[in-house]
Amino acid sequence: MPQAPLNKAQEAFLRLVRRQAYASALNALTRLHPADLAALFNYLPENEQKWFAESIVKAGKLPAVVSELEQSFVPQLLELIPEADLVGALQAMSPDDAVDILSALPNGQQKEVFDKLTGNQKIAVGKLLGFAPNTAGGIMTTDFIALEETTTVAQAIEYLRQQEKRPEIFYIYVTDDHQQLVGVVSFRELVLSPAVAKLSDIMVRDPVAVWAGKRQESVAFMIAKYNLLALPVVDEHHRLIGQITVDDAIDVLYEEASEDIFHLGSLGEAEHVNTPVPVSTKRRAPWLLINLGTAILAAATVGLFQDTISQYVVLAVLMPIIAGMGGNAGTQSLTVVVRGLALGEVDWSLGWKVLLKEVSVGFLNGALNGVVMGLIAWLWYGNALLGVIMFLAMVGNLVIAGLFGALVPLTLKKLGLDPALGSSIVVTTATDVGGFFVFLGLATLLLKFLVV
Amino acid sequence: MPQAPLNKAQEAFLRLVRRQAYASALNALTRLHPADLAALFNYLPENEQKWFAESIVKAGKLPAVVSELEQSFVPQLLELIPEADLVGALQAMSPDDAVDILSALPNGQQKEVFDKLTGNQKIAVGKLLGFAPNTAGGIMTTDFIALEETTTVAQAIEYLRQQEKRPEIFYIYVTDDHQQLVGVVSFRELVLSPAVAKLSDIMVRDPVAVWAGKRQESVAFMIAKYNLLALPVVDEHHRLIGQITVDDAIDVLYEEASEDIFHLGSLGEAEHVNTPVPVSTKRRAPWLLINLGTAILAAATVGLFQDTISQYVVLAVLMPIIAGMGGNAGTQSLTVVVRGLALGEVDWSLGWKVLLKEVSVGFLNGALNGVVMGLIAWLWYGNALLGVIMFLAMVGNLVIAGLFGALVPLTLKKLGLDPALGSSIVVTTATDVGGFFVFLGLATLLLKFLVV
Repeated sequence: MPQAPLNKAQEAFLRLVRRQAYASALNALTRLHPADLAALFNYLPENEQKWFAESIVKAGKLPAVVSELEQSFVPQLLELIPEADLVGALQAMSPDDAVDILSALPNGQQKEVFDKLTGNQKIAVGKLLGFAPNTAGGIMTTDFIALEETTTVAQAIEYLRQQEKRPEIFYIYVTDDHQQLVGVVSFRELVLSPAVAKLSDIMVRDPVAVWAGKRQESVAFMIAKYNLLALPVVDEHHRLIGQITVDDAIDVLYEEASEDIFHLGSLGEAEHVNTPVPVSTKRRAPWLLINLGTAILAAATVGLFQDTISQYVVLAVLMPIIAGMGGNAGTQSLTVVVRGLALGEVDWSLGWKVLLKEVSVGFLNGALNGVVMGLIAWLWYGNALLGVIMFLAMVGNLVIAGLFGALVPLTLKKLGLDPALGSSIVVTTATDVGGFFVFLGLATLLLKFLVV
Repeated sequence: MPQAPLNKAQEAFLRLVRRQAYASALNALTRLHPADLAALFNYLPENEQKWFAESIVKAGKLPAVVSELEQSFVPQLLELIPEADLVGALQAMSPDDAVDILSALPNGQQKEVFDKLTGNQKIAVGKLLGFAPNTAGGIMTTDFIALEETTTVAQAIEYLRQQEKRPEIFYIYVTDDHQQLVGVVSFRELVLSPAVAKLSDIMVRDPVAVWAGKRQESVAFMIAKYNLLALPVVDEHHRLIGQITVDDAIDVLYEEASEDIFHLGSLGEAEHVNTPVPVSTKRRAPWLLINLGTAILAAATVGLFQDTISQYVVLAVLMPIIAGMGGNAGTQSLTVVVRGLALGEVDWSLGWKVLLKEVSVGFLNGALNGVVMGLIAWLWYGNALLGVIMFLAMVGNLVIAGLFGALVPLTLKKLGLDPALGSSIVVTTATDVGGFFVFLGLATLLLKFLVV
């Protein structure tokens, strides 16, 4: 979640910590929202971070803070907690929270800490650890209420009263003897129904449910699209095993959209405006070095036509137009296709349709911009043939832009990779290399007519 | 919300419409989810759209379908509904839904239709129309339950029972004699409390609330950050005037992130992989034409150094490296700053800090890539001075990239414009023009030493 300027409660807390007024600080900490606590981690003096981590465990806020903390800080926070305290905290929290925390530990420690869990908690956590983290099973919570069809409204309300407070419960699920999901009753419906009604009378039958193996983006989109508060998760036998709540769906949607934005901008990880200079420099450097490699490829293409350029140096002047237009059109295609893949609008089997569309759009916009630029080149240098070459190069370059703008993300996706990551570098290189080749190649072929 | 392939219920409905089996189709329509109905609009035969629009009104699903429909289709749908039917529907729906629909009408018709509303509905709608659409007031619903502190749990539940079903109610708000918000009781708390308890006993006092004028992104982020189901909206006297629900917050977050992605990709509006070729071509063309204009600026910069290039054509070969690296680094800075602005991490007053950071990162990565590229250029052409020029140009270019990558979105935001829209074109032009100027300028100054 976003990092905003600190609010007053956070600043007051920071002052207490800096003054080492630990008793008052602990008191203030218990009253701070987990999201606000998470945002503070970055602002703490380094020698107070251990106190902070231990106090969060003491206050029972570890799972909530971890879920709000920027991912790259989680291992740092966990490292500060003595292992015995960590095991105790994991034993007490809900199994899905425990899994989130275990997953953030280094591999060796993960096994070690898991082995120290006991009883039902160990069994529940073990089961959840089996789900891939980016699936419905990986993000679901196992906290849910399931009752039988014959339960009355009064019995259900009484049952809920006896439970400890469980803020995640929006629906009462109704299951049969085999734990299979048969219906759902909203909290609201429950409250507003007569006390003697049976759940079977008021439940919605065959509610929407997702299989535990479904990808988290699809699940989040379902929740968003149908305005749900929670979505039940079932196993392959349609047995109810968990639910995904709307707040987790928001986090997934936010993460996915954010990831696409950063990846399309050639940034491997999320970065904030206040990420320190050395960290930002280090994170961006690999992508720039890769881009340097591919840019050399583009330069080498130009190198092939060095003789042509030395005979007609105007070509060098016009080169930036080819490169700029190809890059821009390629980014447009790339953006649309990456979004389409993220939203499940398209997959590899329908890829050829998308390819055809992007190439067609490239051709049409290439023709439009080619006519404009062809006329400008003609008037600028008084050379009609140069205008024709410019027109043809523009069309060729924008067709290449459409082709690679669609092909690169589709291929990355097919290979099981992120369709956005690094793709803008590949697409720009393709348009640079292809565009220069068409432009300078045509000029070389027609050189004797071009230079008169 | 995303457009996915059609499901079975949607396909069955389409078949009925194509067969003109209107009675069965209307029956099927009432059972389809509004999100699924909205997605169908694009797939209907053109001569059936009018029937579809009128049937949606008949089924009382107009507001729900409009809220799920892709924005560009809304005026098209509304146009198909006879004005009398539209007025009737507006009179019957909740005021905030009516405002959404009125806002989608062409300006002339908006006034005309509004004037035909009557009674309380006209007053409520008129009030809401006064809020800017991208503020809390603009996205809030005026459907909420407010009760007095002395109300008992039993009375509150009885009151809720008497209401028609209102799916948006997650909280019971508690107000004083002046309609000022003093507390909130969750539905869950209400159900689980003793029947004789007073709302004042169980309510959370001084709950989080937002002012109606607050920007919609900030409100959505608050809901996401604090995992709320709804957020009360108050006027300048802290009087409760509405609430914003989590499903609307998801829509805002989704819209904003999506908008940033498209705008950074030089696309003015959202586009789908299945947007028809002519529409895509038309939407992308203006941005490509603007880019053509700015690319000509870059070309003109190169034109200034035509003589230098003709004396040392290797410079033309290396130009794509300068352009490619500047564009990539500029996009990285731009992405981080645009995200930071969207998330409220930074504003104009702290802009200089961001500027300083981006310039520093640009300097450091410029030095790194400059050393690598300088050595390559030296070895490639056996000319040490060329390597030095390449190093200096790379540093200069990446500093320019950081400077403009931060400055452009900050300035656009300061001017009240979208910080993402068109900014990548401006930034790439700045790095092209600046990078070529430094590179070719240095080469011109040192030409007599460069060519030996």
